[in-house]
Amino acid sequence: MTDIYENLNLRFEHTALKPETTTKDIEKLCQEALLWQFYGVVVNPVWVKECQTILRNTKIKIISVCGFPLGANRTDIKTMEAVKAVNDGANEIDIVANIGWLVADEFTKAEKEITEIRKSLPYNIILKVIIEANKLNKEQQINATRSVINGGAQFVKTGTGFFGGVTIEQVKTLYHAARGQIEIKAAGGIKEPKQARELIEAGASRLGCSSSIQIMEQLKIENNDKRP
Amino acid sequence: MTDIYENLNLRFEHTALKPETTTKDIEKLCQEALLWQFYGVVVNPVWVKECQTILRNTKIKIISVCGFPLGANRTDIKTMEAVKAVNDGANEIDIVANIGWLVADEFTKAEKEITEIRKSLPYNIILKVIIEANKLNKEQQINATRSVINGGAQFVKTGTGFFGGVTIEQVKTLYHAARGQIEIKAAGGIKEPKQARELIEAGASRLGCSSSIQIMEQLKIENNDKRP
Repeated sequence: MTDIYENLNLRFEHTALKPETTTKDIEKLCQEALLWQFYGVVVNPVWVKECQTILRNTKIKIISVCGFPLGANRTDIKTMEAVKAVNDGANEIDIVANIGWLVADEFTKAEKEITEIRKSLPYNIILKVIIEANKLNKEQQINATRSVINGGAQFVKTGTGFFGGVTIEQVKTLYHAARGQIEIKAAGGIKEPKQARELIEAGASRLGCSSSIQIMEQLKIENNDKRP
Repeated sequence: MTDIYENLNLRFEHTALKPETTTKDIEKLCQEALLWQFYGVVVNPVWVKECQTILRNTKIKIISVCGFPLGANRTDIKTMEAVKAVNDGANEIDIVANIGWLVADEFTKAEKEITEIRKSLPYNIILKVIIEANKLNKEQQINATRSVINGGAQFVKTGTGFFGGVTIEQVKTLYHAARGQIEIKAAGGIKEPKQARELIEAGASRLGCSSSIQIMEQLKIENNDKRP
């Protein structure tokens, strides 16, 4: 089951970030990730331990958001939240940049914050930085991506999903700004196989998605797959 | 200027919580609060120090949200964020409960978390707990309010504003559940003087509001106030 449908499943970070998400929802999320062999699950920090209990000794990665979804926390709190998430079992951290700094072109501050968070995490933990591209003009998206690179993170992520969906244009902009130095995670409003493919073609290596199951079910039909 | 228009200004917590809020926006927020003599300003934690610089030695209170707006953080991180906000100059803390616990009727967990946060804050700091009423049924709203009381907080707050606006019905429900033991803060989508008055009549003693200026300007016209 690991190479079905153009390996699209391996691109998906299966996501549940609503405030009303319950323990049961988290269990379901993890079971679905196992069934479809998604790359990982993305959860709020309070649920990381729950995921770890279910997913340890499996290939599914646990991704915790931090400073989410506003990014307007003190740097030390964002850092501590990330460190604790790793201690609880997170393999990757998706942190929200201070968007107020980005829209005010204060990229040095943003870079310094990312550097500090990166320094506090073990080397084998992947750090993604969310820049909320929907709030930025094209030049700011490019400069923000440079800050993410200079801060030592591994991915730039388009948005939280709370402030509009990702566009192909955004992924292209980030991909070109990244110059192969970091990868791109697209997130927000991904609902169709076609859209998922286009985002990957535009340069995204990962897709953050709450509709992953619905997309996989559509792919199953497209591929005339009769398995239950 | 402190008793204009039925003292409505003294009910307002003048709010700026968007991710793209900048230093300049925060300065403007504080100046507006001074001009209209609002009860206080509500900001994300990274901006508390900025407010403190402008508002120290004035009557305007500084309110920091914490664990905002999802509430799905570890309890120790929420607590540390609140403690740091107070150290930075916050007079009041608006913390988001774990909404996933509330919708799953796990009120004991919610109460324990509130108790822990309350214990970590100085006695003179007002603690408000956001229960996101739009995600709860009426019984859950009542039980959540009881948890807020038992946890030792001073206010129950209807919502974050990120998941729909407050209703008169919600304020009535919370007010009756509170039995005078805690106060009610209404927040989310408050845009008209009439609505503000109705929420107060229903039992809210404070209003969290991003449209405070627009409401005061309308009141100025209603009251035929010619001052600039």
